[in-house]
Amino acid sequence: MEKVTILKLDCPDRVGLLSRITGFIAGLGGNLLEVHQFSDLLSNWFFARLEIDTASLPIGLPAVGLAEKFRPLADELKANWSVRNGAEPRRMVILVSKLDHCLIDLLWRWRAGEIAAELPAVISNHPDLRLMVQREDVAFFHVPFDRGKQEAFGRIRSILLDVGADVVVLARFMQILPPELCEEFEGRIINIHHSFLPAFIGANPYRRAYERGVKLIGATCHYATAELDDGPIIEQEVMRVEHYHAPSDLLRLGRDCERLALARGVRYHLADRVLLHGRRTIVFRD
Amino acid sequence: MEKVTILKLDCPDRVGLLSRITGFIAGLGGNLLEVHQFSDLLSNWFFARLEIDTASLPIGLPAVGLAEKFRPLADELKANWSVRNGAEPRRMVILVSKLDHCLIDLLWRWRAGEIAAELPAVISNHPDLRLMVQREDVAFFHVPFDRGKQEAFGRIRSILLDVGADVVVLARFMQILPPELCEEFEGRIINIHHSFLPAFIGANPYRRAYERGVKLIGATCHYATAELDDGPIIEQEVMRVEHYHAPSDLLRLGRDCERLALARGVRYHLADRVLLHGRRTIVFRD
Amino acid sequence: MEKVTILKLDCPDRVGLLSRITGFIAGLGGNLLEVHQFSDLLSNWFFARLEIDTASLPIGLPAVGLAEKFRPLADELKANWSVRNGAEPRRMVILVSKLDHCLIDLLWRWRAGEIAAELPAVISNHPDLRLMVQREDVAFFHVPFDRGKQEAFGRIRSILLDVGADVVVLARFMQILPPELCEEFEGRIINIHHSFLPAFIGANPYRRAYERGVKLIGATCHYATAELDDGPIIEQEVMRVEHYHAPSDLLRLGRDCERLALARGVRYHLADRVLLHGRRTIVFRD
Amino acid sequence: MEKVTILKLDCPDRVGLLSRITGFIAGLGGNLLEVHQFSDLLSNWFFARLEIDTASLPIGLPAVGLAEKFRPLADELKANWSVRNGAEPRRMVILVSKLDHCLIDLLWRWRAGEIAAELPAVISNHPDLRLMVQREDVAFFHVPFDRGKQEAFGRIRSILLDVGADVVVLARFMQILPPELCEEFEGRIINIHHSFLPAFIGANPYRRAYERGVKLIGATCHYATAELDDGPIIEQEVMRVEHYHAPSDLLRLGRDCERLALARGVRYHLADRVLLHGRRTIVFRD
Repeated sequence: MEKVTILKLDCPDRVGLLSRITGFIAGLGGNLLEVHQFSDLLSNWFFARLEIDTASLPIGLPAVGLAEKFRPLADELKANWSVRNGAEPRRMVILVSKLDHCLIDLLWRWRAGEIAAELPAVISNHPDLRLMVQREDVAFFHVPFDRGKQEAFGRIRSILLDVGADVVVLARFMQILPPELCEEFEGRIINIHHSFLPAFIGANPYRRAYERGVKLIGATCHYATAELDDGPIIEQEVMRVEHYHAPSDLLRLGRDCERLALARGVRYHLADRVLLHGRRTIVFRD
Repeated sequence: MEKVTILKLDCPDRVGLLSRITGFIAGLGGNLLEVHQFSDLLSNWFFARLEIDTASLPIGLPAVGLAEKFRPLADELKANWSVRNGAEPRRMVILVSKLDHCLIDLLWRWRAGEIAAELPAVISNHPDLRLMVQREDVAFFHVPFDRGKQEAFGRIRSILLDVGADVVVLARFMQILPPELCEEFEGRIINIHHSFLPAFIGANPYRRAYERGVKLIGATCHYATAELDDGPIIEQEVMRVEHYHAPSDLLRLGRDCERLALARGVRYHLADRVLLHGRRTIVFRD
Repeated sequence: MEKVTILKLDCPDRVGLLSRITGFIAGLGGNLLEVHQFSDLLSNWFFARLEIDTASLPIGLPAVGLAEKFRPLADELKANWSVRNGAEPRRMVILVSKLDHCLIDLLWRWRAGEIAAELPAVISNHPDLRLMVQREDVAFFHVPFDRGKQEAFGRIRSILLDVGADVVVLARFMQILPPELCEEFEGRIINIHHSFLPAFIGANPYRRAYERGVKLIGATCHYATAELDDGPIIEQEVMRVEHYHAPSDLLRLGRDCERLALARGVRYHLADRVLLHGRRTIVFRD
Repeated sequence: MEKVTILKLDCPDRVGLLSRITGFIAGLGGNLLEVHQFSDLLSNWFFARLEIDTASLPIGLPAVGLAEKFRPLADELKANWSVRNGAEPRRMVILVSKLDHCLIDLLWRWRAGEIAAELPAVISNHPDLRLMVQREDVAFFHVPFDRGKQEAFGRIRSILLDVGADVVVLARFMQILPPELCEEFEGRIINIHHSFLPAFIGANPYRRAYERGVKLIGATCHYATAELDDGPIIEQEVMRVEHYHAPSDLLRLGRDCERLALARGVRYHLADRVLLHGRRTIVFRD
């Protein structure tokens, strides 16, 4: 990711779009390492992600410069778009409660380089996971919820702004976010829900999955919106279960679904591989 | 299946149950080819399926004789139970509308011996699939629905009784069965629903799956009950979908899920591998 | 497929390629419905598939005309390429022996429109499946192998040439093709092998899978080459198996893997979605 | 696991076996919480695992006492068998090199209670992972290999004997074990190989998978034997890959396969859920 510049855009579809955009990059001598495009024929909308070898761009043309040059075309196309220098990773903040399986997985992948981001903070409503975070040299903030949600979320928002959070990951954070926060960070809050949505929205999905007698359990990584478990889905994972699996077994098996789905979703988001289209996502997977 | 006798039962759990039951079989010299048991610790209930080599039972001891001998023990255990001679396959009737993918799959598996049943009739509310059925030497009944559902379902019920149907398979039959029929054939009507229930109950599940932007579609094979898509689940199958899959692609991909889930569910049921426990099923798969 | 024109190409990678190619299409007013491209950074090779709305091309510009116009650019790029009018489907011939599960699946998908091809002939070394083929109004050729392989394959080759076969599908055809035939139809013979290659190359893979005690069985759809089971892989499918599955169960379960993998591979090939790169394939799936 | 006693056995099959064994347990008043049995009809061999509520056994009847009582029957049946008190977990030693993904996953699951064992030592031929181990309060032994394999494995063997290792887990340990050690710990050394065996035995399986162009990669958890990657398979996991996945992507994606397959295999082994039958395993999964 360090040596690439990523152009991401979506706009109304029309003839010659890809030619215009790739022609623009070619005109700068830019070498395309990876190109994804998708024309949604139902809504007549165009989506693209272009990964450009930064070294092939004119010397001294950082992402901000490329953006400047691209703006007129983007305006003409009425595009939603962004240009990002892969060498400047996003700043990710993780929110957790007491369950540690998603956190430890994210920390390991982050340390291993699978997840390309800076990690200025982990925030929790409980102190339990402090050691696990600090031993990775990551700042841990304990924000107790005993004086009310409003104050606590005010505190969380302050931390997010202080550390310059670009992305917020809810790694089994057991509190429902206030709508204002969801809106302020729209499209930048990633949640993991422990069911294959839209089945079992809300609390205790494994218990309800057990009672319904499903033969597959799952986990869903999605953008958080003001409406609970209703945001655009980025990734889902499922696992087969049998009659002999008690609710506690579903919890155990489900942890692996959760970890895999969340890790993939976060990775895709951080690499600008997810484009939003109403309640749907376009995911150019890697 | 031809050479085995199957004892299936469930009852309140208690110490020594499996010993009592296997002791009973051993006392007759019966050779157990396959034994499954499951103790549900949450509800304290016991489930078992025993497959006995018919040839090892005393000569002239057909299933009905074995049942007679087993009855006192079964009564003592307060068991729900059945004994069946595998050489006497069940009589299965398939209900279809116009979509043929599940029907043709079942017909092929039936002809190939994957599904062990007699097939005295296929019933449809449309005439379209007559040829496909008759060329397999299976009787086809066209029951039009233009004079009202009540009359049509009366006709269907007559056919089911006439041909001695043990099992009714709804192979994408696009009509909702009346509650009386569901009750009369309780635990013997197998439906395929084209979503991973409990998501997308009811009509147009693929369209709604598309609109919700799920990353996995599925199919659910379940027993039909009076409440729509709410019966005990026997089997589920899922398939990954991507943003570039239009609703018509979901239909196409989903057909494979439907065929697999339905075929497995029907196979398990016909081999007495499914035990009911409220809304849950115990499935001793093969 | 009927209303689209498909341009498929691969060539040495270089800066500005996609711009050149899409610029060419845009210059003709062509509307791109679907674009896939892949730059293999390891071999520095470029692959693309462009699906163009035929109606957007200048009136009277059939595939052959588009090809004529594209040739100079293709020559400059040193590309392997093809242009095909989706309204002119390929001619597919299926070779079978006695096992019918892949054949019946292909026939159903072909009739249902999942597989877009003409089907001028099915050829078998046994007469058993004649009825199954003829009832679909497809010509069936029985080519006995009792007078030697050479004569039989000579006969098969004649039929392939007579009916103008573009694609040959080996749907569990239990004879090894002679190297000359593999070369004559290179990249156009699709085989299904009943293992997850490269495990269990050759005969009796299910028996050997059983003996090795694997926990997953599979099937591999690949292009046939002169070396047995060694050609480029198009698609693979696997299924979990347990200790209680005897070899006959693996056969049964494997049939579903084989049908799915073969059907997908054939579909991708017929839609020009498979590009060859040495022993590897680039598959732009749908 | 703490409150259960586990009886595991296999022996030649014969009529009345399960009755004899469950009768023995019932005679002691033992409450069976979980029973698995499997009759292998091909080899005429019987396998069983019985989980007994320890509290239901006569007071003061520990596993060793139960074993004493069971011995005469076991001798008569010519059984391989064991009785184990779940309250006395096995002693597991993990061997690693530099790759940490399997180790960190096992450590987390062990800490979380998914893997029930004592963990007296982690041994490595490199010092890199010392901190990761010690921070979990587990002893770390660095055994360098620079003075030759023989001496190093002598040292490893000493540690295994010193700490009383019951089970040895090779968590991507990049050294081939000497045959003597494999024999000494036969059926107790669990390895993870990064391919779906028997494909890609030996070194660099991901690179070779890439070159062969497979569409699925996998990992195999198996017992180590003197012959490389040839021991009985306990568990396998696979993941779909695409043409755009470079060898480095296969490494990344494969790590998740490896972690899942190894964790499950280790869990099953530690809970006496794996029975050996030549090169095959019977796995009574949970």
